[in-house]
Amino acid sequence: MDVAKKILLVVLDGAADRPSVNATTPLAAANTSYINQLAREGILGTLDVIAPGTPPGSDTAHLSLLGYAPKKVYTGRGPFEAAGVGIEVRPGDIAFRGNFATVKNGTVVDRRAGRISDTRELAEAIKEQVHLDCEFFFKASAGHRAALVLRGEGLSPNITSTDPRRPGTMLRSRQTADDAQARRTADIVNDFTRQVREVLEEHQLNKDRSIAGELPANAVLLRGAGVVPHLVPFERRTGLKGAVIAATALVIGIGKLSAMQYIPTKGATGHIDSNIDEKVKNVNEALKKYTFVLLNVKGADEAGHDGDFEAKKRFLTRVDAALSNLTLNESTLVAITADHTTPVSLREHSGDPVPFLIHGPGVRIDRSDSFNEFSAAQGGSNRIRGLDLMPTLLDLLGKGKKFGA
Amino acid sequence: MDVAKKILLVVLDGAADRPSVNATTPLAAANTSYINQLAREGILGTLDVIAPGTPPGSDTAHLSLLGYAPKKVYTGRGPFEAAGVGIEVRPGDIAFRGNFATVKNGTVVDRRAGRISDTRELAEAIKEQVHLDCEFFFKASAGHRAALVLRGEGLSPNITSTDPRRPGTMLRSRQTADDAQARRTADIVNDFTRQVREVLEEHQLNKDRSIAGELPANAVLLRGAGVVPHLVPFERRTGLKGAVIAATALVIGIGKLSAMQYIPTKGATGHIDSNIDEKVKNVNEALKKYTFVLLNVKGADEAGHDGDFEAKKRFLTRVDAALSNLTLNESTLVAITADHTTPVSLREHSGDPVPFLIHGPGVRIDRSDSFNEFSAAQGGSNRIRGLDLMPTLLDLLGKGKKFGA
Repeated sequence: MDVAKKILLVVLDGAADRPSVNATTPLAAANTSYINQLAREGILGTLDVIAPGTPPGSDTAHLSLLGYAPKKVYTGRGPFEAAGVGIEVRPGDIAFRGNFATVKNGTVVDRRAGRISDTRELAEAIKEQVHLDCEFFFKASAGHRAALVLRGEGLSPNITSTDPRRPGTMLRSRQTADDAQARRTADIVNDFTRQVREVLEEHQLNKDRSIAGELPANAVLLRGAGVVPHLVPFERRTGLKGAVIAATALVIGIGKLSAMQYIPTKGATGHIDSNIDEKVKNVNEALKKYTFVLLNVKGADEAGHDGDFEAKKRFLTRVDAALSNLTLNESTLVAITADHTTPVSLREHSGDPVPFLIHGPGVRIDRSDSFNEFSAAQGGSNRIRGLDLMPTLLDLLGKGKKFGA
Repeated sequence: MDVAKKILLVVLDGAADRPSVNATTPLAAANTSYINQLAREGILGTLDVIAPGTPPGSDTAHLSLLGYAPKKVYTGRGPFEAAGVGIEVRPGDIAFRGNFATVKNGTVVDRRAGRISDTRELAEAIKEQVHLDCEFFFKASAGHRAALVLRGEGLSPNITSTDPRRPGTMLRSRQTADDAQARRTADIVNDFTRQVREVLEEHQLNKDRSIAGELPANAVLLRGAGVVPHLVPFERRTGLKGAVIAATALVIGIGKLSAMQYIPTKGATGHIDSNIDEKVKNVNEALKKYTFVLLNVKGADEAGHDGDFEAKKRFLTRVDAALSNLTLNESTLVAITADHTTPVSLREHSGDPVPFLIHGPGVRIDRSDSFNEFSAAQGGSNRIRGLDLMPTLLDLLGKGKKFGA
């Protein structure tokens, strides 16, 4: 009688959808013969990642799937992004997500600075030349992305973003709480914004870009301010040694803040061109050393945001082919799900429940024979909440937390 | 890629049941070929309107289905009845449901005064001749029904009803809280009761009834005292412009208190003889101007309370025929459900989950091909709570409230 000893949690980011082309979904239309084999041998159901009808962010969704109640620990996306790009955040820090952008006459003309690909030089200049009334850490991430962390006494997350979220006037941060900490933090953020503008405007890289007819990355827009939360380390909560394999800073950051090991993957981009085969190789290696592995594969979400049914379907077919190289054994419990639905019809996250499957020893195999939104809705696990997933998996390992005697 | 833009919510009041005659339910036995067509093209599930095993009132049920948490906003049925009969209630008013009744020697001999059909003259006399220690509004409703509203400083809902609920001694209102407001309000209610008795006893209409051998409507019994709650207007909560089409004062009142437009229907009685065709015509018109329409059809509940399986089945067959004249288009999401189960075996509301179906763009069509308690229990939406319905519908319109980023 076997009981599983380790868990592989595969999150197909934004993979779930609503029926559109031919009244079906990209996941149902894709060739997912390997995952369907797991479905035949496993149990399916649907998950309300947060609650029925509530569209999850990727941040709150991953927290929920990992068993951290987002209503208790979620303070904003900034802290996870900052941790994910490699800033050593500490509980109490104020963290932001940032975008390098192009500003002309105080107006944001491109929130991504012409999709600039490498801003490390600009970030170095900012670190050297900007001086604030508190300690700060700034780091460039993939593409136009960056993160900022403020550290010190008397700071507050109760301030507004400087990012207007669409082309338009660049914003000033304002306090949203009537206290000295919020006022001081808004002042620091506005000071940062002003100094960054000066540093970047003068930077040779931007002068070169202008000459080459490219948009200069002459400003940094901030959003997602949050105080870095204290997450009880994953191993202390679950007894499992966790590793995270992902390309996006957010998921890496959630892994780091919950004290999992981040395992980088060559060629993992977080985009539709990501090197999924390499990720799967890493998973096979990781399963030898860790008792919990979180694999996030991002591309389907991107295709959903782009409203591209065919691209989403093709990507999921490619994911299936890559996953077919997983080397699983009888001690591994595999769970496959999505962090949220990203319907190509909406191009945004929606609150539809997501399908999930669990495969491995001890699972009560149901009649579902394929992994998609329709068959999962008829699955033997019925419909549960995102926060129920981790206790369910741990319990299958014989690690459920007993209540009563 | 279509996303729905408006919602039609059809509440078949008390339509759900338990199997009895031929081991089936009135809804399953009725000819509902139109609704079954919607079921084939839609998704089904069951709803615990309040919680498993909790019989909902019609008031708390409708609040829940509209997304207002009854545990937070429900103060009693009086406020909704009063608003429904057309009294312009204000938050803070104390409101009651009332019955014209027949009292002899202090004993209630008929709680409905021989099912008197028109009490407007009597209500006028009460308004003119009764004088209380606070402002008051009294209005006759359908049949023997009426509503009373007390307005002023220092009033309280913490008092008992005067309605004994069955033939027997007419009650005096007593305070249920140990404060001056409750004492004063009970005094006012008892004063109202006494004066009403005098006014009605002397009224010509009652003298005529006695001569004709009919029971006089010589008293008003009060119950359901509640302070009028503040409901956040439906449009502010949902972004949808709402209209309500219903015959019963309660549902009309819930619509009014949530700032929806009430659209009256000729011949809509709230009984089994109601003009459902006319209601459906009104729905078709309303869907041109409003982005949310609540249609309540009451008769099945009445048949359930009467314990009449055949009448309930016939009424639901008639409802289906009327609904087949709905003119729906691709921008309309339709949800059909019941506010509660009223089993003919119990003749009272029960806490069984009710079936629901959702039909329209974006819906993940399941295998269920008929709308009844049995097929809904196997539906792709599984089992959700009443309060989950409105977020689910709003999310299908792309109006879900995202949590996280």
